Amino acid sequence: MAAILRGSRCLAEKCHNHVNAAQVSIRSMASKTQVGFIGLGNMGNPMAKNLMKHGYPVIASDVFPESCKELRELGAQILDSPADVADKADRIVTMLPSSPNVIDVYTGPNGILKRVKKGSLLIDSSTIDPAVSKEMAVAAEKLGAVFMDAPVSGGVGAATSGKLTFMVGGPEEEFNAAKELLSCMGANVVYCGQVGTGQAAKICNNMLLAIGMIGTAETMNLGIRLGLDPKLLAKILNMSSGRCWSSDTYNPVPGVMEGVPSANNYQGGFGTTLMAKVCFVFTFTPVPLGSLAHQIYRMMCARGYASKDFSSVFQFLREEEGQ
Amino acid sequence: MAAILRGSRCLAEKCHNHVNAAQVSIRSMASKTQVGFIGLGNMGNPMAKNLMKHGYPVIASDVFPESCKELRELGAQILDSPADVADKADRIVTMLPSSPNVIDVYTGPNGILKRVKKGSLLIDSSTIDPAVSKEMAVAAEKLGAVFMDAPVSGGVGAATSGKLTFMVGGPEEEFNAAKELLSCMGANVVYCGQVGTGQAAKICNNMLLAIGMIGTAETMNLGIRLGLDPKLLAKILNMSSGRCWSSDTYNPVPGVMEGVPSANNYQGGFGTTLMAKVCFVFTFTPVPLGSLAHQIYRMMCARGYASKDFSSVFQFLREEEGQ
Amino acid sequence: MAAILRGSRCLAEKCHNHVNAAQVSIRSMASKTQVGFIGLGNMGNPMAKNLMKHGYPVIASDVFPESCKELRELGAQILDSPADVADKADRIVTMLPSSPNVIDVYTGPNGILKRVKKGSLLIDSSTIDPAVSKEMAVAAEKLGAVFMDAPVSGGVGAATSGKLTFMVGGPEEEFNAAKELLSCMGANVVYCGQVGTGQAAKICNNMLLAIGMIGTAETMNLGIRLGLDPKLLAKILNMSSGRCWSSDTYNPVPGVMEGVPSANNYQGGFGTTLMAKVCFVFTFTPVPLGSLAHQIYRMMCARGYASKDFSSVFQFLREEEGQ
Amino acid sequence: MAAILRGSRCLAEKCHNHVNAAQVSIRSMASKTQVGFIGLGNMGNPMAKNLMKHGYPVIASDVFPESCKELRELGAQILDSPADVADKADRIVTMLPSSPNVIDVYTGPNGILKRVKKGSLLIDSSTIDPAVSKEMAVAAEKLGAVFMDAPVSGGVGAATSGKLTFMVGGPEEEFNAAKELLSCMGANVVYCGQVGTGQAAKICNNMLLAIGMIGTAETMNLGIRLGLDPKLLAKILNMSSGRCWSSDTYNPVPGVMEGVPSANNYQGGFGTTLMAKVCFVFTFTPVPLGSLAHQIYRMMCARGYASKDFSSVFQFLREEEGQ
Repeated sequence: MAAILRGSRCLAEKCHNHVNAAQVSIRSMASKTQVGFIGLGNMGNPMAKNLMKHGYPVIASDVFPESCKELRELGAQILDSPADVADKADRIVTMLPSSPNVIDVYTGPNGILKRVKKGSLLIDSSTIDPAVSKEMAVAAEKLGAVFMDAPVSGGVGAATSGKLTFMVGGPEEEFNAAKELLSCMGANVVYCGQVGTGQAAKICNNMLLAIGMIGTAETMNLGIRLGLDPKLLAKILNMSSGRCWSSDTYNPVPGVMEGVPSANNYQGGFGTTLMAKVCFVFTFTPVPLGSLAHQIYRMMCARGYASKDFSSVFQFLREEEGQ
Repeated sequence: MAAILRGSRCLAEKCHNHVNAAQVSIRSMASKTQVGFIGLGNMGNPMAKNLMKHGYPVIASDVFPESCKELRELGAQILDSPADVADKADRIVTMLPSSPNVIDVYTGPNGILKRVKKGSLLIDSSTIDPAVSKEMAVAAEKLGAVFMDAPVSGGVGAATSGKLTFMVGGPEEEFNAAKELLSCMGANVVYCGQVGTGQAAKICNNMLLAIGMIGTAETMNLGIRLGLDPKLLAKILNMSSGRCWSSDTYNPVPGVMEGVPSANNYQGGFGTTLMAKVCFVFTFTPVPLGSLAHQIYRMMCARGYASKDFSSVFQFLREEEGQ
Repeated sequence: MAAILRGSRCLAEKCHNHVNAAQVSIRSMASKTQVGFIGLGNMGNPMAKNLMKHGYPVIASDVFPESCKELRELGAQILDSPADVADKADRIVTMLPSSPNVIDVYTGPNGILKRVKKGSLLIDSSTIDPAVSKEMAVAAEKLGAVFMDAPVSGGVGAATSGKLTFMVGGPEEEFNAAKELLSCMGANVVYCGQVGTGQAAKICNNMLLAIGMIGTAETMNLGIRLGLDPKLLAKILNMSSGRCWSSDTYNPVPGVMEGVPSANNYQGGFGTTLMAKVCFVFTFTPVPLGSLAHQIYRMMCARGYASKDFSSVFQFLREEEGQ
Repeated sequence: MAAILRGSRCLAEKCHNHVNAAQVSIRSMASKTQVGFIGLGNMGNPMAKNLMKHGYPVIASDVFPESCKELRELGAQILDSPADVADKADRIVTMLPSSPNVIDVYTGPNGILKRVKKGSLLIDSSTIDPAVSKEMAVAAEKLGAVFMDAPVSGGVGAATSGKLTFMVGGPEEEFNAAKELLSCMGANVVYCGQVGTGQAAKICNNMLLAIGMIGTAETMNLGIRLGLDPKLLAKILNMSSGRCWSSDTYNPVPGVMEGVPSANNYQGGFGTTLMAKVCFVFTFTPVPLGSLAHQIYRMMCARGYASKDFSSVFQFLREEEGQ
């Protein structure tokens, strides 16, 4: 009967995926049933804990057994492989480092899709190529499951405090089901459009951030050279049209703000090497500043800044004394 | 007594300007005496009117007699030359298009400094090279007058409504006297440091704005190409680390915001040619994105975008249909 | 028997490619036996004809039957698919538009590798991603064949006159066998190293060309603006340290040289869109100018220069009259 | 009478300068009379010696007395000031570090123009802003003298061996007189057009050189990363369309060529700081690569490469091991 209900909705809505609607509704009705979680790294671990805090039993897996220890002690069930998790849970969140990991966790020999249940909701919060998200969605759909991309904005701090922003792509009719879980882990859950648009939104934000940070670093360096006090300059920019997140929230100049990497010798934060590895070049659209920003982060990596926070571009561009 | 205090402080501090302290105090005490105003263009005209609204008699001059007509009808006294104005008023505001105009209005044969009174306060709101501001200050100081640079942020609208931001450089002890006048014309009057730092602050803000606008245009183009709705993308950026003035206040994509040039075919606003003419290259500090932004505005000018608002860079970078 | 010899050598030498040395010598000895040719486009067609002129019987195939007509009339045997060609010839040259075509022609359902003979020599002259070349080499090796990448420098003219330059990557011991064929089609056949290095050399050359052309266009525009005669400027550059191929052989300024696209309204030559599509970004190495050059060609495509020769960047950057 | 002759020539030739033609001819006829030389630095010293080798008595001056010692020992007459030199010689060559020095040596209180003789030929081989050259020419012309700009290409080695290239701007009818002297010091003397065009040609060449060097460094780095041998890659580029002076004459990769700074730890050669200080931004013409090249040299200066040869950009962009 479930199949029938589902089928009728599909007919009615000209839907593009064949997920069983009844199972979807079972998912919703029994919402505090177990949730799968694959990838218990720096981000995934606190995210899974927040799911548990909200009353969801978690069934987790990670390639590194030691990563599972903390969650196991908190009562999560730890299984050997993504396939095992898919066998037990029909809602699964994945949080993985890169596209190849996602491909493996979903389509590999012990991957989710090997044993995924019809009607399952698969939410990938990894930051990857939108084209890979689309491929995973097609593969999942063939097995009657729904794949959504939901990359996050915010770092380990936001993951711990449940203040992440999720940018979600996938079938609009599944968004509420995804939001139910994601809102346990984030303060904002934004629907972006069809599958892949979550990744697209994240790429866009990262590119503008990459530009804004270097622009801010250049501007602060220039102003200091021209005789301005850095705190005062930041204040002026922030009340004017030069204002941006890098100037008012994450200022790259030591001494201007507290609680940011520039106040701590550029430790922590978002590594320059990550910024350099982000690829902006998915389309034929001209992105001259985005592209140059990318190259500058690469130059920084070549000159020893790889593991510092990306705001250390201020230091990289700063003239040494006596010149 | 003011003079005594002033004199003694100067001796004690090895001060660098020789303005007559007694006259300064006369200026302050008789604050609603006449104020000179040179340069009645699109910006200067509403600024001078705001001074009059606040009860200051204005004595004005402009190289174009027709520019003076409106102010004369409002009761201002119009004189032939800056020198004539300097002969009558000991507080003068200048608002001129570029460095050569400022040099001429101050040091030319009919310039202010030909007949400036000792103790006069000369406030230049033009946007010029900080080095020229410093030269003018030195020349004024030799004649016992004080020169301050006070460029503005905000366009004709802000000039009309008295909502400009002034960035002021010059002797700190003269800042209050300058602020008294400038606050009639602006909502924010910020002290930036020694002479030239007002210009420096403005250059810095303009450079970061130049970068932020192109970055926003690239990002919006990229996102649209990747399937995102522009309004939604702007919303996501504005709640994330990509946020900047160009994304949240002056979005370059038609249809995203109202009341900005992109909503009006890039008419009005801040011309690309102005953005291209701004010179960021006053120091040896590396400004790779600032420099490339500058070049992109130049390319736009070469391709027919000179008179459009600078946010038309969105259109310049947009791929044409069918590619 | 060849197969037996082959196997034994491999066992003995733990070799990295499994080509049978005896067959290699058979190939060489019987050099004027038939050669396969896949891809009879603008480049492939004259290349195949040059092979025939040198006395090689050609067995060809192309997805577009009409492309085969001319060669058939000249006496070539035309077959239906790459697999059919591989069935008949043990030396095959491929000349295809892009990576996906190469993947299909080699590994597709009717691809060369479906029926490749052990010991065959497969030479790909397409310009593609070096990583794809490496994949093809691995796949060929598993079947006992040798794959070499041999992209060309030079256009249709050089293909017709047999003056191409081939940059060849693959096992050094096979280079002579490849050179025997390639020297019928080109004036220079350069061994670059292991498989993929032919593509790498071509990418490197294209990147430096892309930079040199824009640099030359900027320089010529600047010099003209500063009052220099373009022919004289080109002459000065060409005897000085600014000299490059784009200034002395392919000058982008109309009137400076004859027989180049700039002398013919930028018709013919190498399309800007091709330059914009070349991807330089295969590694983590910083390439700031290469990357910006790439973006400038993209901007040109967005502004209507897609189908003009890439030297039209001179025109793209030229200020319009009256500015 | 001289004035009459002169006047008649002017009428006949629609000439643009008022130099006395008769005196010009006196200069030519008495060609091995004394020549003035101002500026005996690293370049000026060997240049003046070459004049003497060709039989010209030299009357010299330099702000640093010790710079004059060697020339005095060789028999040159050393005077206190440029004005003194101008009093004795009607042909003067100047070789100075920058625009302010040129302004001072010509128009300062002890400058050439204080005592210049009518009809004198003043040749400035300094590399300066073309606008300054034009100013000097106007000032000289008012006193009946001819000023020509003649900056050089080539370093101390070329100056010593008399192999410099001179790019000469000024009245065409004076070019032969200038060439007579300059050909004692250089292998090429090229007439570029009206005054300032010599500087313009030099700026253009330097900009294209600045771009070509970074482009070559990027390309060589990329190729090495992609598995190519640097010597082989240089050879391939140099026979292809990527060829440029930086790849074939001054290759930036250690081990590729001998006798260049890259073979000697980037000692000697042309300092990065000089490259960074060259200003390309004299006009409104877009020069995106030139501008970015400039910024990259600035970044190098900020990171400790200021005193290395500019080809050390190869090292600056090279990824460190293990990345």
